Amino acid sequence: MTKPRVGLWLVGAKGGVASTAVVGLCALRRGQAGDFGLVSHLPEFRSLGLADWDAFVVGGHEIRPARLFDEAMRLVSVSHAMDERWVTESREELDAIDARVRPGTAINVGPTIRQFAGPDVPTEETPREAVARLQRDLAEFAAANRLDHTVVVNVASTEPPVDPAAVPPTWDALDRSLDDRHSPLPASSLYAIAALDLGLSYINFTPSLGSAPEAIDELARLRRTRHMGCDGKTGETLLKSVLAPMFRQRNLRVMSWVGHNIFGNMDGVVLSDPANKKAKMASKDHLLREILGYRPQTLVSIEYIESLGDWKTAWDHIHFKGFLGTPMTMQFIWQGCDSLLAAPLVLDLARFTELAWRRGETGRMTFLASFFKSPYGVAQQDFARQFQMLEAWAGS
Amino acid sequence: MTKPRVGLWLVGAKGGVASTAVVGLCALRRGQAGDFGLVSHLPEFRSLGLADWDAFVVGGHEIRPARLFDEAMRLVSVSHAMDERWVTESREELDAIDARVRPGTAINVGPTIRQFAGPDVPTEETPREAVARLQRDLAEFAAANRLDHTVVVNVASTEPPVDPAAVPPTWDALDRSLDDRHSPLPASSLYAIAALDLGLSYINFTPSLGSAPEAIDELARLRRTRHMGCDGKTGETLLKSVLAPMFRQRNLRVMSWVGHNIFGNMDGVVLSDPANKKAKMASKDHLLREILGYRPQTLVSIEYIESLGDWKTAWDHIHFKGFLGTPMTMQFIWQGCDSLLAAPLVLDLARFTELAWRRGETGRMTFLASFFKSPYGVAQQDFARQFQMLEAWAGS
Amino acid sequence: MTKPRVGLWLVGAKGGVASTAVVGLCALRRGQAGDFGLVSHLPEFRSLGLADWDAFVVGGHEIRPARLFDEAMRLVSVSHAMDERWVTESREELDAIDARVRPGTAINVGPTIRQFAGPDVPTEETPREAVARLQRDLAEFAAANRLDHTVVVNVASTEPPVDPAAVPPTWDALDRSLDDRHSPLPASSLYAIAALDLGLSYINFTPSLGSAPEAIDELARLRRTRHMGCDGKTGETLLKSVLAPMFRQRNLRVMSWVGHNIFGNMDGVVLSDPANKKAKMASKDHLLREILGYRPQTLVSIEYIESLGDWKTAWDHIHFKGFLGTPMTMQFIWQGCDSLLAAPLVLDLARFTELAWRRGETGRMTFLASFFKSPYGVAQQDFARQFQMLEAWAGS
Amino acid sequence: MTKPRVGLWLVGAKGGVASTAVVGLCALRRGQAGDFGLVSHLPEFRSLGLADWDAFVVGGHEIRPARLFDEAMRLVSVSHAMDERWVTESREELDAIDARVRPGTAINVGPTIRQFAGPDVPTEETPREAVARLQRDLAEFAAANRLDHTVVVNVASTEPPVDPAAVPPTWDALDRSLDDRHSPLPASSLYAIAALDLGLSYINFTPSLGSAPEAIDELARLRRTRHMGCDGKTGETLLKSVLAPMFRQRNLRVMSWVGHNIFGNMDGVVLSDPANKKAKMASKDHLLREILGYRPQTLVSIEYIESLGDWKTAWDHIHFKGFLGTPMTMQFIWQGCDSLLAAPLVLDLARFTELAWRRGETGRMTFLASFFKSPYGVAQQDFARQFQMLEAWAGS
Repeated sequence: MTKPRVGLWLVGAKGGVASTAVVGLCALRRGQAGDFGLVSHLPEFRSLGLADWDAFVVGGHEIRPARLFDEAMRLVSVSHAMDERWVTESREELDAIDARVRPGTAINVGPTIRQFAGPDVPTEETPREAVARLQRDLAEFAAANRLDHTVVVNVASTEPPVDPAAVPPTWDALDRSLDDRHSPLPASSLYAIAALDLGLSYINFTPSLGSAPEAIDELARLRRTRHMGCDGKTGETLLKSVLAPMFRQRNLRVMSWVGHNIFGNMDGVVLSDPANKKAKMASKDHLLREILGYRPQTLVSIEYIESLGDWKTAWDHIHFKGFLGTPMTMQFIWQGCDSLLAAPLVLDLARFTELAWRRGETGRMTFLASFFKSPYGVAQQDFARQFQMLEAWAGS
Repeated sequence: MTKPRVGLWLVGAKGGVASTAVVGLCALRRGQAGDFGLVSHLPEFRSLGLADWDAFVVGGHEIRPARLFDEAMRLVSVSHAMDERWVTESREELDAIDARVRPGTAINVGPTIRQFAGPDVPTEETPREAVARLQRDLAEFAAANRLDHTVVVNVASTEPPVDPAAVPPTWDALDRSLDDRHSPLPASSLYAIAALDLGLSYINFTPSLGSAPEAIDELARLRRTRHMGCDGKTGETLLKSVLAPMFRQRNLRVMSWVGHNIFGNMDGVVLSDPANKKAKMASKDHLLREILGYRPQTLVSIEYIESLGDWKTAWDHIHFKGFLGTPMTMQFIWQGCDSLLAAPLVLDLARFTELAWRRGETGRMTFLASFFKSPYGVAQQDFARQFQMLEAWAGS
Repeated sequence: MTKPRVGLWLVGAKGGVASTAVVGLCALRRGQAGDFGLVSHLPEFRSLGLADWDAFVVGGHEIRPARLFDEAMRLVSVSHAMDERWVTESREELDAIDARVRPGTAINVGPTIRQFAGPDVPTEETPREAVARLQRDLAEFAAANRLDHTVVVNVASTEPPVDPAAVPPTWDALDRSLDDRHSPLPASSLYAIAALDLGLSYINFTPSLGSAPEAIDELARLRRTRHMGCDGKTGETLLKSVLAPMFRQRNLRVMSWVGHNIFGNMDGVVLSDPANKKAKMASKDHLLREILGYRPQTLVSIEYIESLGDWKTAWDHIHFKGFLGTPMTMQFIWQGCDSLLAAPLVLDLARFTELAWRRGETGRMTFLASFFKSPYGVAQQDFARQFQMLEAWAGS
Repeated sequence: MTKPRVGLWLVGAKGGVASTAVVGLCALRRGQAGDFGLVSHLPEFRSLGLADWDAFVVGGHEIRPARLFDEAMRLVSVSHAMDERWVTESREELDAIDARVRPGTAINVGPTIRQFAGPDVPTEETPREAVARLQRDLAEFAAANRLDHTVVVNVASTEPPVDPAAVPPTWDALDRSLDDRHSPLPASSLYAIAALDLGLSYINFTPSLGSAPEAIDELARLRRTRHMGCDGKTGETLLKSVLAPMFRQRNLRVMSWVGHNIFGNMDGVVLSDPANKKAKMASKDHLLREILGYRPQTLVSIEYIESLGDWKTAWDHIHFKGFLGTPMTMQFIWQGCDSLLAAPLVLDLARFTELAWRRGETGRMTFLASFFKSPYGVAQQDFARQFQMLEAWAGS
């Protein structure tokens, strides 16, 4: 069998997560990055036949004018997030990828994101025109690089939430609405439609709407392709999905769970807009009551603290009742580098998705639930059991 | 079917865990305690037909001269561990149980524990004489209270570790050694032998030797009875068994895991003897390498800080490598009341064990692995998967 | 010399701080409370001749219908903030004080506080009528209890902030405005005017306006009496005033200082109104830049978490640059019982103020700066140096 | 006035603190380092006339064979303690200083330190011979670099403690003992004697014996020179000296103060020897009781955790009684880079000491108390008041 050539198309291609993923991919190809943070490198997935790292070609959409190398270097110099050599040694490849990045769309991304859009981002397109343009970019990318398949991953900034009731319930109705300049569909969903309509795979790593609507899932099944989301589970919420089952299984009654998150990257700038933050906070909060089966008082804050750069620090305070009602406390402090936690998962998702393509699987890839804060089509929020879904899929 | 009458025989009957368990049992019978901290009250175990709380009659062995009521009141006044009313409203029952507590044995418990032994604890018995005396106590307890079955639970202080190679490998050989005054068998194992030889169930909630030796498991199977241990998993180690799988499943490489535990109860006094502490620390430490599959640098300390009373505070610092080798940190602080975390598990174990007796199960009760730091006969240390063993057993 | 009889008049007489102060005063009179938390019990103030605890007679104003005993018992049963006996043994005295509490005024306290006002709180008074009524209460209290002097302490809930420019700059002008129903003067300032105009001492333990305006200080000096405020420094802000000088004196550059406060008492309910919270947060925040001499990014949040009751938990994250610009971090977690931290300071302030009265001091009592987050007339925010101001006063 | 030329002679010249100090000095000369962490750069010391950074010439003693550049690079690559450019841009100067480093002495440094000694460290010298050799090195350094004065600073690894009673009480007696091969005097004291006898200044930045003995202070006064120590106060102990006064001044009764320190630099290797650790722990612990005036239960641990490199992480748990005896808790977590906290203080001490030389001050420089965990001749342990001693000296 000839090795497949796989496209990895990043939406938000010059953000922190994308640039880290690209730098990491380069290091992996050089055999220097180790296994750290890579789920697909675990022994249980070794014999699955996942694509090699050198099978991947990277391109993407981006609305900001920026150079990948500069973005990556900021993670080094401002955030002290990784060793400088990772970036300097990947310089040529970063520049080559820069040349494959196309202007994205800023439709319904909200003013806080839109202000970053460069002059080459069209401002007058209808949704249908935007989709058509994005599809041309994807088709040219596939042709130019002789790709067997492309996985589109949304790692762009979080859009303000969309009222789900405003989205037409069927693909037919949604398709018709694409000519309407007042359609509420945000950019993340237009990218999803562009990709899925072409038979490509789509992953929504953000809390934006993406392929969440039923109508877009219908499109994926019609085109016999696949998608999944949403919102990569990398830090504080990952810990919630690990710890909350323990409280439940020991019948320790959580009275309140407070989580304060501080960090200073571009994501933080966008999330300082209350509209954008709302989508993120909802995604971080719901799983507690789903795991516990009742509603403790919860509080989630996300605040932009410039000096922290990419270092996300979370303090969680969990107040619970033990035997005979005695109140007890657990607190945790998580100090992780946001982009470096997210980037390997993006690469893992691309590998697992490519295999699902080879296996001919369609619709929502629920076996990927453990990667997401709000997994499409999955009620199970317990990380341990979500991981078993991945194991079961791998074993099938 | 007539409801069975079940004996709950506590070894270390007047310690913090025992007195909390008894106070809690009284509150449960009055319908006042709620479900907090009780695994056997979870919905998934509701239809199992576990014994009601009023089926239980409590007795026990103890080497210290003490009154249960006074011990329980110390948890209120010194440790602020529970509301005073729980103790005062149980006063009569506590006094009645006092009358059912018999002098234990202090053979091979080490000098730090032995110093607490009262004058009615024999000092010149052979191991066989001690076993015979303990068995008379158990038989009288069963007869006097017309019990259908008794579950013996060791909640006494941690003994110094015993070299496993010094314990005869078969029941036959071990039985013969009971006449030897120089036998290394500690009290915890003599209680186990006494119980199992009578066909009773035995649970070792401590890191002491108990029924760990193969020869004692053989005895259990010969007498068609059951046992399990060891060392109740209540706080910091519980969290290790919940968090370490997450680090493994995300391929986040743990470089070091430091855990400092401070508390000020009687357990703390005993553990300030390095010999006794050694057993405890080994039990708290091994599971990390078993879950992770490699050996991070680990450090576990347990220190007696008088002012904390029963409030065990643990600080854990986990230093791990993420993508591209970037070091990140998670820390947690656990502030739990030791006796109140342990006591409900003792009651749960009694209920689950009584059902295993009715079901006719023999040998090690591996389905109880999730309750223990070092579960007998179980290599699985991942709490989530251990809990699934309990669910599977319940569903069978 | 005959011992003076001193009135302690608490505004917000049935809140958490007031009820704790009263319970503590009763315990101090019985000689049972120890020295814990009492600044005036330090050896350096022993020979000052401060009034004995049995010199004090307590009364107060309150807008909520409540019983002191019930309020105090809530600190026991809901918050586990103190031993039950402190309250039960003071029951008679608490009931006697209840009889000396008069309806307060709810003028300009904002809707969140006003909703708690009982039916006996007048709703149609002009400011002048309110002041006159409050003064009658104070005069009757002094006469009925044959008091030599009364210290009025405001421990009521935090009012929304008032624009200082809206307050007339002289006593003469302010006095005339008291007939104006649209005067912006809030209750805290009316209590201050009532007290000071009678020659009594006034302490503002809250961030409300109180006696902050120049015109009210002028009144105090005209009447040859004294006052001080504002906002008792009890926990997180106390630590800021202790730690920030260290960062400055070591030239460690604070880049950001984030402080999250969670708690669940009545104060928390009131502070969940953004208007009221604004006054509090300003008071907690300014001192960092005053101590450091530059403006680090700061964030202060105060959130109501019901389960915590009176237990204020604060997490502070301080991100600073060390030598060669290397970023470092200090975090602290403060778990203190709010009322129990504040109450002894209220008693201390009453004692120190009474002595200032005997000494004939007038105007702002700047020597009390160490007790306050925003001390009137004092630029020094460094706790150590503020404490030296108290020592200097005591030594004079 | 011609600018003085000042020697900075570092004992332990290639350790983490020394190499950071040298790298920092180079950056300061280039005007790139900023003020971060430098006490002598505070505005209050600006007009004192302290020596400029380019007045300093660095040399030193060292027992390990090592290159300064390599040692400094380890702080970059292993510990991520500073930006790489600080080291690479100082490479030439580091190599020049390497050439000025002479073999030290390993007399009575204990086996854990001695194992690192290179072949050029003499093993058969008497104390007097060692002192004579060290003095030749210092004299050559001064002559070769035309120095007006030299400040010797001990930043070598911590020696095991010495029984003070074993050290002769007068210089006369101590001098005579230098021919005795069994003299208990450790290397740190021999360096002190060598320096002071030549009229140079000596600073002991470690808990080793150094110039602590009365007899060595007598020597300093006889030679009209000056010295100070001991043990630089950089992190956890600094915080103790800042926080403990607050607990005392608020009469909050500290019941227990637990401090756990973990780190992974060379200091950590040496301190994993219990003999060496003992000196360090005593130095970290005494000040609490001196500040508080009573003895809370204290616990200090220092553990070597390799993965942390130079990042010292300390967790302190302070359990205290508030009003009415209610127990409360403060915890802090300090994550600082050890060498980067210490190095600027070494440079500051050299500057302040050089000025004391110009001012003709002799004996112990008590005005430097704020820099030390155990300041010679100073009972005051409160950091704020120690800093005022420095301010007073500067203002004189």
